[in-house]
Amino acid sequence: MTYCVGLLLDAGMVFLSDTRTNAGVDNIATYRKMFTFVDPGERAIVILTAGSLSITQTVIAKLSEAIEDSDNAPYDSIMHAPSMLRVTEIIGQVLSDVTADISAKVSRMSQAATASMIVGGQRAGGAPRMFLLYPEGNFIEATPDTPFLQIGEHKYGKPILDRVVAPETSLADARKAALLSMDSTLRSNLSVGMPLDLVIVETDACAIGEETRIEPNDADFMALSDAWSAALRDSFRAIP
Amino acid sequence: MTYCVGLLLDAGMVFLSDTRTNAGVDNIATYRKMFTFVDPGERAIVILTAGSLSITQTVIAKLSEAIEDSDNAPYDSIMHAPSMLRVTEIIGQVLSDVTADISAKVSRMSQAATASMIVGGQRAGGAPRMFLLYPEGNFIEATPDTPFLQIGEHKYGKPILDRVVAPETSLADARKAALLSMDSTLRSNLSVGMPLDLVIVETDACAIGEETRIEPNDADFMALSDAWSAALRDSFRAIP
Repeated sequence: MTYCVGLLLDAGMVFLSDTRTNAGVDNIATYRKMFTFVDPGERAIVILTAGSLSITQTVIAKLSEAIEDSDNAPYDSIMHAPSMLRVTEIIGQVLSDVTADISAKVSRMSQAATASMIVGGQRAGGAPRMFLLYPEGNFIEATPDTPFLQIGEHKYGKPILDRVVAPETSLADARKAALLSMDSTLRSNLSVGMPLDLVIVETDACAIGEETRIEPNDADFMALSDAWSAALRDSFRAIP
Repeated sequence: MTYCVGLLLDAGMVFLSDTRTNAGVDNIATYRKMFTFVDPGERAIVILTAGSLSITQTVIAKLSEAIEDSDNAPYDSIMHAPSMLRVTEIIGQVLSDVTADISAKVSRMSQAATASMIVGGQRAGGAPRMFLLYPEGNFIEATPDTPFLQIGEHKYGKPILDRVVAPETSLADARKAALLSMDSTLRSNLSVGMPLDLVIVETDACAIGEETRIEPNDADFMALSDAWSAALRDSFRAIP
């Protein structure tokens, strides 16, 4: 399983993903699920992936191929697309095509494979936008009413986001909320695991601000997790 | 959907269930999902149900039939079973039979129907025990390592239980934890809805202690919910 979350705020975007993949519970590995495509000052695109690794790796490979050799690739380059909407449409088309291709293969073995993605970013002259792509390639967009998107094992980490995240939330608070949301998920579900990848894209920067890999024994993350546990227990005791 | 939770503590057992049932999102109704079978001082059994209402109602009806007319019913009465293990085996057998019967019917329409249950209780001379029955009729038991069981939409409400519930937790704290776990679920999932049914069975009482229906505008529950929201937000702000 996987947990990825993206927050779209007035001040910018926060992306957080885990790295655990598994084929059954006895075959666990670490794979990056966050991919950044940046032309500093011109555009910054972040893609988070969940689902079948064979699908998500192939989609990212085809997107990269189209960027490197846009004349001969079957898809348009997301680095030249005129808007974030068009970027997301291209990714949705690749995801749809790859899923159909792989599904046709695995369905012959009575298996299924799907993947979903979060795409966020901004190009110079456009607004920051964030989308959730369904396995079929269609998508929805984050809005001020629902300024965050989640894929994978999303339920454990949703209550904290529901309570504290709004468009006016600062990037520091959004970073904290995303990490606490991940912390709740890590505690309750073995199939989501460290290390974590965190990226922050400030509004109108069109570049990656912070980009961090948080390792399993990261002192700051452990302190945050412990402080949150203690705060929850104190709050619990304090309630009449 | 549904959310039911049972906590097995040294001091006794806490049971909490919602009441929302739905056939699609446009057909919502209120049904009790908690059933108590009590012979005061001799035994107290509480059953929580999740899943297809046609299955759970039929199971409860067959259990009741066996209690009322144990000579002619095809199952043993759970009110005469010599242990909680045997009580759970009887319920598991009925659940398995009813599920097989209804599944055979609905599979002809390419539909599926299943149900799961939590069974907890104590009889005089035995220990308090709590079980989770799977749709197939087999079951697992709550233990000191994992002193709570959940059925239905369990993920949103699990983090708080993971953090604060242990066998030595008082009944008052366990009641609070169960209600906060339900509150998180109600906030994040529309298919779980008020009113709530709450029952507390103290160890060695073999009788129902508290039995409460909590209505949608219950002042105490709203105060608890608001206090928890405020405490979570304060805790969030207080963390560095």
